[in-house]
Amino acid sequence: MTATVKPRSEGDSETFIDRLQEDLSEDLGATEALLHTRAASPVAVIPNLSGYIVSAGGKRLRPLVTLAAARAVGETSHGTHALAAAVEFIHTATLLHDDVVDESDLRRGKKAAKNLWGNSASILVGDFLFARAFTLMVETGNLEILDILSQAASIIAEGEVRQLAAAGRRDLPTEEYLAIIEAKTAALFEASARAGALSAGGAEHAEALAAYGRNLGLAFQIVDDALDYGGTTSVIGKSVGDDFREGKVTLPVIIARRRGDAEDIAFWDRVLDVDQQRESDLAHAIHLIRSTGAADATAAEARAYAELAKAALNTLPQNTWTRALRQLADFCLNRVN
Amino acid sequence: MTATVKPRSEGDSETFIDRLQEDLSEDLGATEALLHTRAASPVAVIPNLSGYIVSAGGKRLRPLVTLAAARAVGETSHGTHALAAAVEFIHTATLLHDDVVDESDLRRGKKAAKNLWGNSASILVGDFLFARAFTLMVETGNLEILDILSQAASIIAEGEVRQLAAAGRRDLPTEEYLAIIEAKTAALFEASARAGALSAGGAEHAEALAAYGRNLGLAFQIVDDALDYGGTTSVIGKSVGDDFREGKVTLPVIIARRRGDAEDIAFWDRVLDVDQQRESDLAHAIHLIRSTGAADATAAEARAYAELAKAALNTLPQNTWTRALRQLADFCLNRVN
Repeated sequence: MTATVKPRSEGDSETFIDRLQEDLSEDLGATEALLHTRAASPVAVIPNLSGYIVSAGGKRLRPLVTLAAARAVGETSHGTHALAAAVEFIHTATLLHDDVVDESDLRRGKKAAKNLWGNSASILVGDFLFARAFTLMVETGNLEILDILSQAASIIAEGEVRQLAAAGRRDLPTEEYLAIIEAKTAALFEASARAGALSAGGAEHAEALAAYGRNLGLAFQIVDDALDYGGTTSVIGKSVGDDFREGKVTLPVIIARRRGDAEDIAFWDRVLDVDQQRESDLAHAIHLIRSTGAADATAAEARAYAELAKAALNTLPQNTWTRALRQLADFCLNRVN
Repeated sequence: MTATVKPRSEGDSETFIDRLQEDLSEDLGATEALLHTRAASPVAVIPNLSGYIVSAGGKRLRPLVTLAAARAVGETSHGTHALAAAVEFIHTATLLHDDVVDESDLRRGKKAAKNLWGNSASILVGDFLFARAFTLMVETGNLEILDILSQAASIIAEGEVRQLAAAGRRDLPTEEYLAIIEAKTAALFEASARAGALSAGGAEHAEALAAYGRNLGLAFQIVDDALDYGGTTSVIGKSVGDDFREGKVTLPVIIARRRGDAEDIAFWDRVLDVDQQRESDLAHAIHLIRSTGAADATAAEARAYAELAKAALNTLPQNTWTRALRQLADFCLNRVN
């Protein structure tokens, strides 16, 4: 009789996350317990809906950043676990609201919560998780961390509104795109890393870890935006073409439009008005993004930020955890969902 | 030449609020300044939308409770003003999300923000204001207050979900109705009063002021629910019949149904399924609520909570501000919008 062993291969990036989760299993276990107990409520919809999305196969990237950042510079504590759970709750609340805002029907390869419980429940349970995130943060008793995370939360919302206002804007400058993803995505990775460092008494490394988190978040989001034009829905969790159908102007589109000829530009200018989109437009958009080299250029941009993330760790003690944080940056580049 | 003087009459309850706002003008001015500066953002939609709703003629009841509670037991400070602004931001964020959830077209007698900026902007600007509320709270540097307000925020969201789950529930017990309004409305009044007391160094009076706030909030919400079946849309800000059209089971309905004969019960059981409502149903509902005495019984219930609120102040120093808080309870009973 052979025990069933989960196959592992060194080069497999999914395996890296599995291993990191295993290495941090004690910390992650404490964090998971908080994600479970703090989403509890006598109002059944709340644990049902939040349980559905919290356990929907997320990789816990932000908690992993908090935990590994803390380990890299010191010891983890209940405060670290509370923060790791808090950043995941903030992220989850954002996902719930995003799904309503974007009218997305899939999330992490499953039906979006709003399609099962309705928009109203998704909005209100998001608010609940957001509030519970703050209660968890208050438990750390650290006002500096509270300030960082509450500011990150308003920057995220600001980024989301900015993205909404930019939808369909044909001439969106690259800098505006980067400002949007820095706010809506990188700010939480940055706060996750910084808060982890501070919770472990590593104030002198907080800036470096914040820079790591910010650049990691930028790389992560750029890859995410590239994935929207690659792969197939049957393989990846994110529905290909979601951003396209919402008229979101992301880096692959900005580059492809910039490099296109007059006909290509006319194409982009039509399809970025979502009401003008036709059935075959997504396939042509993907074609243009590949043929103009915009897909490669987008990947190169993500790689550059991942390198900046890794370089930010150079001033830190070099140990298992700084190594893991570097590998996490590579993982974000190579992920397929 | 006669200066234009705003007419005043002692018995006019609107006048009482004007006077209270005047008596607290310095504190309220500092609070208003925070409501303005802390809603600032380079993303124009944010100050535009929040400015629209924040300045849409709200009475600032929750900030007034915080400020008067602080004055009743001590001195106000920047911390008090920050808390007063924070509770108004939390309230405003809730209104923005409520309008999306309830599909209300009117708010404070004006078009709901979502009808001008869309649901998505209302959700995200609500999130922004909620985050800014926490940043304001962190400025007080008082972890006890942070804990109280973050817990209040999750209780509010829990109450909203509970209300959503109860929509159309024909046999909603009075106790469940009270639990819902205690969570969705009274918890913030309670936290507003308690935080005000704590910010002014009046910890020994915090429990009494919390009880005041809770009972005031219950009275306020019961009156609100009664107003949904009285007055005319041309006079009052809240659209009459909003709750009815959403199938919300509120106290006037619970009492009218309980007191009704078989035909009345059949009527309620049909109309609480919003898909079964007909044009003339609202008028009949109002008729039943009046003829069964449910309107009077609802008013009596509100009066009882207002009395409990006033009685909770008996252990406090008796001064201008405890008197103002008592008058505020009467104001909540007598308001027409």
